Amino acid sequence: MNKRIENVLKRSEADELLVSDPIAIYYLINRRFYPGERFLGLLIKKDIRPKLFLNVLFPSEPIEGVDIVSLSDTDVLTDVLSQYIDKDSCLGVDKTLQARFLLLMQEEKIARRFINGSLAIDKTRAIKDEEEKQLMRKSSQINDQAMAILKTLIKDDITEKQIADQLLGIYNSLGGEGFSFEPSVAFGKNAADPHHMPDDTKLKYGDVVLFDVGCTYKGYCSDMTRTFFYKKGPDKLQEEVYNLVRKANEDAENFIKKGVRLCDIDKTARDVIENGGYGKYFTHRLGHFIGIEDHEYGDVSSAFKDLTETDNIFSIEPGIYDPETMGCRIEDLVIVTDDGCEVLNKYPHDIEIIG
Amino acid sequence: MNKRIENVLKRSEADELLVSDPIAIYYLINRRFYPGERFLGLLIKKDIRPKLFLNVLFPSEPIEGVDIVSLSDTDVLTDVLSQYIDKDSCLGVDKTLQARFLLLMQEEKIARRFINGSLAIDKTRAIKDEEEKQLMRKSSQINDQAMAILKTLIKDDITEKQIADQLLGIYNSLGGEGFSFEPSVAFGKNAADPHHMPDDTKLKYGDVVLFDVGCTYKGYCSDMTRTFFYKKGPDKLQEEVYNLVRKANEDAENFIKKGVRLCDIDKTARDVIENGGYGKYFTHRLGHFIGIEDHEYGDVSSAFKDLTETDNIFSIEPGIYDPETMGCRIEDLVIVTDDGCEVLNKYPHDIEIIG
Repeated sequence: MNKRIENVLKRSEADELLVSDPIAIYYLINRRFYPGERFLGLLIKKDIRPKLFLNVLFPSEPIEGVDIVSLSDTDVLTDVLSQYIDKDSCLGVDKTLQARFLLLMQEEKIARRFINGSLAIDKTRAIKDEEEKQLMRKSSQINDQAMAILKTLIKDDITEKQIADQLLGIYNSLGGEGFSFEPSVAFGKNAADPHHMPDDTKLKYGDVVLFDVGCTYKGYCSDMTRTFFYKKGPDKLQEEVYNLVRKANEDAENFIKKGVRLCDIDKTARDVIENGGYGKYFTHRLGHFIGIEDHEYGDVSSAFKDLTETDNIFSIEPGIYDPETMGCRIEDLVIVTDDGCEVLNKYPHDIEIIG
Repeated sequence: MNKRIENVLKRSEADELLVSDPIAIYYLINRRFYPGERFLGLLIKKDIRPKLFLNVLFPSEPIEGVDIVSLSDTDVLTDVLSQYIDKDSCLGVDKTLQARFLLLMQEEKIARRFINGSLAIDKTRAIKDEEEKQLMRKSSQINDQAMAILKTLIKDDITEKQIADQLLGIYNSLGGEGFSFEPSVAFGKNAADPHHMPDDTKLKYGDVVLFDVGCTYKGYCSDMTRTFFYKKGPDKLQEEVYNLVRKANEDAENFIKKGVRLCDIDKTARDVIENGGYGKYFTHRLGHFIGIEDHEYGDVSSAFKDLTETDNIFSIEPGIYDPETMGCRIEDLVIVTDDGCEVLNKYPHDIEIIG
């Protein structure tokens, strides 16, 4: 049995786990399936080879260490599952398992009890192994390079969309596969909307320019934000805002190490911004976990009291969104280490005038 | 209460329905939400104003005829729901409701019984009202126009991707919003793979050219396939294949009217191809229902024995995928009428040499 499956089973409260999320399955057996509306499931339990329930519409090469159980559209799903699942077991199902499957399984009593079994997978995924850390480093390295190229594309009257449309090509040329999320490009007042999507807004002299972008590399995500000034440096208030955000980012990153509470990392950044008088303009959590998905289980927020563990990877992205002064966010990804953290983004935090 | 909600409740076996699929909610109250991992739900029951459970992160204008119940990330979902759901009721939940919500609801016993309540919605959606029919007609009209433009773009050595990349612009120029699905463009032997995605294959003299494309118009989907010949007409076997597919399409369309079994429509087309000796090369169902989504509940297949109803809309898309001769598919959308059907695609079925 592979190490990841072993780690998940160690954390699991259920007797057996039926994993149905294609991304969790990819994590566990390194194969991606796109089952659409068809059932897909990986059954894992101690001392038994994992079984992959796979519709014949999605043929697969053999998978090392995994038995494939073929399903067809005319099979009764619960009949097949009950040949492999102990009807007296407590079965952990995926948090995303759809009701149309779960209700049938419950009706046919294929297990004694059904529980949400995802936490064991989510917590295992939150601790990256060596291979994953390497891929995350490379993905962020590409993102750093892309940021350096992106800022050279701006000029008077170019639109946010015209910039965003060039980013996929940049990632491809650097070895990335695609976006890890839809890129945000925001000029001027748009930067004060933390969820702004690129539109036809044209760049003007003196605008703030915010890029929140990320790619995937061999399936692993990057995610970084930088805020620039177009042709003209910040005025006094803007400089104050920028430096507060920068200090919030860097104080939080300096605070991180194994065994601190995630909520306290959030507080470290939030205190900086609150003490600076801009607390009400920092309207979101400080960060989110990331890996195969841009947003994975785990928050850097006041509500998340878990302790960091070595090899957690998450974002640190304080922001101030003051419509009168400016919108600003500075975001890096970090890997938690025993006595600190490794910041994956090397693109500097300094105030930078571009164009 | 609006007509669509009324129709769903008439068909429902449950006492109350908790709709959580954002597309079903859009269908019922004409608002689109993108809740991500947050809970979204619309509770409908007889003689009570619908309640929309909506996270405060997704602020909404008031919605006529609907009460909005705000949720925040710190609320206990089941506490809120149980204020509105009768604990002695049989609650219909969406087939796509995630286990993490359903298991909590069951644990807290917010209802006496939980069933899959989606069929009532799916069957209501399968019968289009006047407004929907108009939008579907317009969407297919744009698709007809796009097909006529698309075929003029081909030339020696252009790649499938280069053609596909131009299609979004064509739809936009014609008033469409976007793709209803990723377009398929297949040259030569690629046409014999019914799921081929556009790649760097270059067009050559004598190739078959297959376009399977669709757009959305005001949220409603089109979907059509035509197969052309590049610069050189079909040889004798290709002509035979093409004419069989055409006859399968037209015989099926002529057979359609209110009250026939969907499996018999499939059989009408399949018989033509089987009698022509190509049965083993027609490897998929004849069609699928369509509307707000490209694939909606309802199949035109041997397994689907339901009767057609007036104002059903589905695709008729026979194909022959013979790697030795050619791949060919001819697909239209149709609206069932009392005594026949209205074919939404006016683009002709004739053999056409392009380029």
